[in-house]
Amino acid sequence: MPAISIGFVIFPNLTQLDFTGPLQVLSRLPDSETQIVAKTRDPVPSDCGLSLVPTRTFEDCPPLDLICVPGGFGVAAAMRDAETVGFVRRMAEGARYVTSVCTGAFILGAAGLLQGHRATTHWAYTELLPLVGATHEPARVVWDGKVITAGGVTSGIDFALRIVARLAGENVARSIQLGIEYDPDPPFDSGHPDRAPEEVRQLVAPRYAQGREDYRAALSG
Amino acid sequence: MPAISIGFVIFPNLTQLDFTGPLQVLSRLPDSETQIVAKTRDPVPSDCGLSLVPTRTFEDCPPLDLICVPGGFGVAAAMRDAETVGFVRRMAEGARYVTSVCTGAFILGAAGLLQGHRATTHWAYTELLPLVGATHEPARVVWDGKVITAGGVTSGIDFALRIVARLAGENVARSIQLGIEYDPDPPFDSGHPDRAPEEVRQLVAPRYAQGREDYRAALSG
Repeated sequence: MPAISIGFVIFPNLTQLDFTGPLQVLSRLPDSETQIVAKTRDPVPSDCGLSLVPTRTFEDCPPLDLICVPGGFGVAAAMRDAETVGFVRRMAEGARYVTSVCTGAFILGAAGLLQGHRATTHWAYTELLPLVGATHEPARVVWDGKVITAGGVTSGIDFALRIVARLAGENVARSIQLGIEYDPDPPFDSGHPDRAPEEVRQLVAPRYAQGREDYRAALSG
Repeated sequence: MPAISIGFVIFPNLTQLDFTGPLQVLSRLPDSETQIVAKTRDPVPSDCGLSLVPTRTFEDCPPLDLICVPGGFGVAAAMRDAETVGFVRRMAEGARYVTSVCTGAFILGAAGLLQGHRATTHWAYTELLPLVGATHEPARVVWDGKVITAGGVTSGIDFALRIVARLAGENVARSIQLGIEYDPDPPFDSGHPDRAPEEVRQLVAPRYAQGREDYRAALSG
């Protein structure tokens, strides 16, 4: 038996990097085993033409010490899916860490797991956190007891390195960082709305206005 | 017909984030189409328990404007595979951009595509670049004519944003950066051997000593 059992929950139209970033990091955690869990074993289509193959179903997944839920536009449908939400709620009970990346936070929320917690999510959706009983904390990764939430998409890499440091020590986390050459050098400074130019914010605004509407509808239905 | 046809070549035991990072960015390039190409349509096992589903085979892949080859330990076998190397060589002829992330550079090299070029790869393998006729340039992303190479794993995100800026303009690249909240905040500064502590470098050394040996054997056989 590995010391740490980790499971990612995937669903149609997830943002694949929400999941694949932390998977790359956490799969190198010593003495751990990683599951990729979905409703069935069929490949799950992501948001960018790539389908991902689950290793377990909700039925045959072993107990998880750490559950991680990624985000994406598919969250609106996943939040409405009783099997998905029920699996997350059930697994979270015995887990040491209940986590999300990006708008995966709202699947935790739909399962009632963010009630009374500080949390974060993709910057475009933070205003919806009160709908699931959470208080937004403006940080890239928020730890609140057993609940750990990360911001949008690429924040999952920073999130996973922090988890490795907590579980296996700083040098192991640093060695994984070195292995994945995580020495970021973005060509621009537009990764957060506080710093992106106004015309860039305008370019993405319609995408997320629609997304928020879909999430609101899912959370109120 | 999309203006830009992009293809990623995948093979068993690739480092999935080498591929999934730039895929997330490039799939948002306007007026483009992305292919995920492998020998067959069977799911391709990556280095971390996740299998990835190709959208095309070497046989039925349309001409590519941009070909991108990721890396990983599976490169040693892929370099020896005449079909994989032959596909990359054939597609590169008509492509506007011939690119790699991480040790995918050695598949380009095995296809003869780095001869006389400045290039980079994962930091642990840069000393092998002369074996494929390339000169190492110490940068995270190296442009040399139509050949663009990126460093290890996560450098693929920086690489892809630079490509979007070139093809669609800076504001589009910035809008994708904002969408994926790429505002990196690594908890440590150990992403490059120049800055990682000695004990951390020692932790990963055996992994890459073996890797270099496998690559040397593949390149000399």
